[in-house]
Amino acid sequence: MMRGGPSTTSRKEPRMNQADDGVGELQLSPEAMRELGYRAVDALVDRWSALPDEPAWRGGSRAEMDARLGPIAPPPEGPGDPDTVLREAIESVLPQAARIDHPRFFAFIPSAPSWMAVLGDFLATGFNVFQGTWLASAGPSRVELEVVEWFRGWVGMPEGAEGVLTSGGSVANLMAVVMAREIAGNPDSPVVYLSDQGHSSLRRAARLAGIPAEGIRVLPTGPDLLLDPDRMRRAVAEDRRAGSVPILVCANGGATNTGRVDPLAPLGRTARELGVRLHVDAAFGGFAALTDTGREALDGLGDADTITLDPHKWLFQPFECGCLMAREPGELTSVFGVQAEYLQDTELGDEQVNFGNRGVQLSRSFRALKVWMTLRTHGLDAIRRGVDHGIQLAERAEARIRSSETLELLSPATLGIVLYRFVSDRGDAEAIDRLNRRIQARLIESGYAMVSSTRIEGRYALRLCILNPRTSWSDVEGVLRRVEALGVELSGLTGRSIEAR
Amino acid sequence: MMRGGPSTTSRKEPRMNQADDGVGELQLSPEAMRELGYRAVDALVDRWSALPDEPAWRGGSRAEMDARLGPIAPPPEGPGDPDTVLREAIESVLPQAARIDHPRFFAFIPSAPSWMAVLGDFLATGFNVFQGTWLASAGPSRVELEVVEWFRGWVGMPEGAEGVLTSGGSVANLMAVVMAREIAGNPDSPVVYLSDQGHSSLRRAARLAGIPAEGIRVLPTGPDLLLDPDRMRRAVAEDRRAGSVPILVCANGGATNTGRVDPLAPLGRTARELGVRLHVDAAFGGFAALTDTGREALDGLGDADTITLDPHKWLFQPFECGCLMAREPGELTSVFGVQAEYLQDTELGDEQVNFGNRGVQLSRSFRALKVWMTLRTHGLDAIRRGVDHGIQLAERAEARIRSSETLELLSPATLGIVLYRFVSDRGDAEAIDRLNRRIQARLIESGYAMVSSTRIEGRYALRLCILNPRTSWSDVEGVLRRVEALGVELSGLTGRSIEAR
Repeated sequence: MMRGGPSTTSRKEPRMNQADDGVGELQLSPEAMRELGYRAVDALVDRWSALPDEPAWRGGSRAEMDARLGPIAPPPEGPGDPDTVLREAIESVLPQAARIDHPRFFAFIPSAPSWMAVLGDFLATGFNVFQGTWLASAGPSRVELEVVEWFRGWVGMPEGAEGVLTSGGSVANLMAVVMAREIAGNPDSPVVYLSDQGHSSLRRAARLAGIPAEGIRVLPTGPDLLLDPDRMRRAVAEDRRAGSVPILVCANGGATNTGRVDPLAPLGRTARELGVRLHVDAAFGGFAALTDTGREALDGLGDADTITLDPHKWLFQPFECGCLMAREPGELTSVFGVQAEYLQDTELGDEQVNFGNRGVQLSRSFRALKVWMTLRTHGLDAIRRGVDHGIQLAERAEARIRSSETLELLSPATLGIVLYRFVSDRGDAEAIDRLNRRIQARLIESGYAMVSSTRIEGRYALRLCILNPRTSWSDVEGVLRRVEALGVELSGLTGRSIEAR
Repeated sequence: MMRGGPSTTSRKEPRMNQADDGVGELQLSPEAMRELGYRAVDALVDRWSALPDEPAWRGGSRAEMDARLGPIAPPPEGPGDPDTVLREAIESVLPQAARIDHPRFFAFIPSAPSWMAVLGDFLATGFNVFQGTWLASAGPSRVELEVVEWFRGWVGMPEGAEGVLTSGGSVANLMAVVMAREIAGNPDSPVVYLSDQGHSSLRRAARLAGIPAEGIRVLPTGPDLLLDPDRMRRAVAEDRRAGSVPILVCANGGATNTGRVDPLAPLGRTARELGVRLHVDAAFGGFAALTDTGREALDGLGDADTITLDPHKWLFQPFECGCLMAREPGELTSVFGVQAEYLQDTELGDEQVNFGNRGVQLSRSFRALKVWMTLRTHGLDAIRRGVDHGIQLAERAEARIRSSETLELLSPATLGIVLYRFVSDRGDAEAIDRLNRRIQARLIESGYAMVSSTRIEGRYALRLCILNPRTSWSDVEGVLRRVEALGVELSGLTGRSIEAR
């Protein structure tokens, strides 16, 4: 019954196995598996080593991709050569992308995984773990229990609080909204409160969960861009007077735009007082709780009813790895548990957790392994210093921007994020927006760094998000210096006109 | 700026990099990465080669797992040895699980990935592709467009129909319900119809989407276990008379319990006539459309408004890989699209698809690569024969059960699934249920095979689900023979008493 032995068709190229029961053709010989596997490892090691000297981003239009890969066509009927397929993926497909883990990838939210995490995912995939039920994954489920217990301690939730790993923050946020609605008994006119600085996934989550449009209340923030507990209190009172049922306030534990953290402790007290649940979207920022700076900024985080965390952001994990933590034991299962006759074999008692009953997925991969392998290899101290590194580089960038003649700080360094722009006294507000957009485009084109933009108080803002432990100060300073130089060049400013300002 | 060079601390063990900017400690040297990577490859090749001689399942209680791994404890503060961590994962964690891809894993829905798919996932992880936007993943997004175009052709949806890869069928089913609700304009009393043979994830999906409990209508099936279009028509009429708004009928394109396919063509006609959407949950069964038998069984599939497919089931992919196909162009984006200021750089025109706008995830991994690499390597013909292989083995199992003195067929072979039980004239119905449960337990304990059970018309049923191309007839026959032998042994029947029956 041992399959996968060397092929007998060709001694020279023992690639494909001979058909056995008509299907051996879907197998490769162990020799071929090993050789192709080594080549995949080599390709990744080469990529990681060369990364800092590569552009931080490479893209192309649909037409350019079709030119490279050929127009979209049906798959081949017969077999192809695995070496060629592997090479095409490595050379023509995968590099045509943002290098999210490049030391000068400062756009959106970067993600710089550890190698042990990548190997953890590879092993979980190759063992093809089904992590929906304890019966099917005792070892993996035990590891997930351990990892969510670590998270519980880090975010300061009480003992007994439970968690589950998800595909990412979007699904975790969706779960938080669904829980609030279900636990409130599915009222007719539920209201969910979001900050105008909340992540887009929260609005989508509320919509997916069937919260009516008039029940998705976006609360405006003040000049500090923070959710004000008093404003929340007034909104809740107003909605209650109007006969609606406020069920959930979503706060930012590190807003994607600015990195800022809503006043979690006061929000938590107000929410409890008002009998409304508090969810904190700490997708990228939550792991800052490992550092002194972050713990202070996130004060009150553990009082939330639910918390979204994304280990694939600031815990140095590859995509995908999200998490929802829930304060009250049993809540996750009571909302998400399923029963089915074909699952009757999986009921094993409370000590054994069926993680498929704690979230939206039944078929689940083993996401906890990568986290577990990373922490066991590098230790918590190194992770802590890695997070702190990003926080400190952003603070240094802020100081550098403040001391610049031509850069304007738009939002101070908070949890690794700084907003700024090039300013010129030539042209109106719109001209300055256009100028910064051109600076950004030129910087990206140069391949030196990938930076993205946002808007703050209506102004076009360049944004630095610094999470990668491989990023050095010279990477950050190099971007600021280039923005200054490009600004001068593109605005037609000369050294003299700068001095004259 | 080149990081990741060999460590200078120890020439003998160049494992960890020296700190650089305080964070090099999170890196490994290229030599260490390569060596650990090769070891992961070796471990997987060894596992795959040895698989048929291993038990099909290994598990343990929470207490047993704690005994093996130690009680749950905080992660270490300092670094550990990566070799040890890798070994612990490979030896103590990963094997304590169901071997879903074992040739004698017949429980639930098996999954037998191709090696090229595993390598595809490994590469996607190691390149850390963010596949939410075209800007961040031109090459990967182009490949996803190609893969969903293949699926569109296979399921028979018209040109222009769109798709998106998901974490699995649960999320795809959720999306189908949300789409129906949104496209119906979010009526006050929506009704979703499920078959009593529908997958548990559909009920959960309706609940997550905020369909009120009284709007989740489970339609009973007749003795054929199929959804009857006339019953559906009557239910819709009744609900409309009562003032509710029927929005969606969910049909099975291969029920998990039995493999049976609802009458899709008549259901599609009726749904169109009634102005209700039709969703087909073809998570495992949909890829049977590649074969003659399957295409016939799935007649009408392409007329559905939405279809769930799980490439991680019958397309030989590892977890996770699901898909939602939508017939009407633009529907996915109109329901799931998001906008945010920090994403303003990602708007690139219609030819360039932001896949994060087609589903529930913004951060997404590159799931299409594994499908693409599998099909390019093995070709469509081999895939087709692989699917056919499972269908044929199940048919042969059905014949074998029919000819057995002691086995009773409970549901004929359909898309790889057969239900049966051991029968004895000793004892009542409950005793027979108990006997079959004991047979199942003994078979699993023996390590020979993993089989699960379900209920059909109230009777405890043993279930064979055969999807693995590595499974041979002797694997299937071996299970049936052992069930017969265990039944005789456990019921106290002797050869004589069997003859006397």
